[in-house]
Amino acid sequence: MSILKERILRDGQVFPNNVLKVDSFMNHQIDPVVIKEIAQEFYHIFKDQGITKVFTIEASGIAPALATAELFEVPMLFAKKTQPSTLANQERYETDIHSYTKNITSRVIISKQYLTAEDRVLIIDDFLANGEACLGLIDLVEQAGASIAGIGICIEKSFQVGRQKLDEKGIAVHSVCRIASLENQTVQFLDN
Amino acid sequence: MSILKERILRDGQVFPNNVLKVDSFMNHQIDPVVIKEIAQEFYHIFKDQGITKVFTIEASGIAPALATAELFEVPMLFAKKTQPSTLANQERYETDIHSYTKNITSRVIISKQYLTAEDRVLIIDDFLANGEACLGLIDLVEQAGASIAGIGICIEKSFQVGRQKLDEKGIAVHSVCRIASLENQTVQFLDN
Repeated sequence: MSILKERILRDGQVFPNNVLKVDSFMNHQIDPVVIKEIAQEFYHIFKDQGITKVFTIEASGIAPALATAELFEVPMLFAKKTQPSTLANQERYETDIHSYTKNITSRVIISKQYLTAEDRVLIIDDFLANGEACLGLIDLVEQAGASIAGIGICIEKSFQVGRQKLDEKGIAVHSVCRIASLENQTVQFLDN
Repeated sequence: MSILKERILRDGQVFPNNVLKVDSFMNHQIDPVVIKEIAQEFYHIFKDQGITKVFTIEASGIAPALATAELFEVPMLFAKKTQPSTLANQERYETDIHSYTKNITSRVIISKQYLTAEDRVLIIDDFLANGEACLGLIDLVEQAGASIAGIGICIEKSFQVGRQKLDEKGIAVHSVCRIASLENQTVQFLDN
């Protein structure tokens, strides 16, 4: 069993509405050992894909994306939720991402300078649930004319629609940990 | 000359009001090579201080703090700018941090669970200018009753008041790069 699965079973907390809290090792306090193992798995899966850039969204995606980019020896880019005063409208791509957990829609942006048609992108995120964050990142990659090599997810809630949406787009998705159910406040993994 | 200084001279952009934009390798796109060098320098300086936790604030502090925590083999904790619905008021420490660049004051929080009186903390941040972010993080450490081993800064604007405020508190500050002036859109380093 992976370190990530062990830590989810030991330290994860299940809240109502299928919220899995992993604040003790991934979303608030971060254990570099867990992050390193996740990055090594993404590297193993995607190492022959000619990746030129690892792409994520702030804030919780930054840790696994940075560790992954280090192994690929490529830059990491994160989409920003704030609008920098030093980046004019015509210099950026933007998209809207809805969070079902927080029930808010956020405008996120990247600078056109850091994602181009020459890039082959590995998208990384901490959670995959309804897929909104990944679809937003895909939209930004497509606006830039770059190609997507695949998506690496730390924790996938396989009982929600995100995975299916990404599969329907024909994108290679690899999740380190797939959760079949959080019913009765109990974590049930899919066998993957 | 450090890789960080080289990259600032090559890719940094100076904007009005002493804004130094390092989006191509640190604050938007991140170069893992630069981050690793910064982390190694912090480790070298603070390795005998009995550090139990590396502490920063989202989002731009996460990358250097994670890389540093990996070398110390301790967890990294980042203060959050949003209020998680799964963390009750009595379970958190909070403080207000003013950003002069963005002219907003943000309430930031940490869970009481992840910082205790037993912790010896290394605070890490990307920039030190007026010192507001560091003073906020110090306030959170003090609320937790933990001790501060020191502060590691990637880029210090030595011509602003932050460094002096931290020196007056008697806290050991190490900045990888100290900038004496950004006048005439030119980066002048302090010799350190």
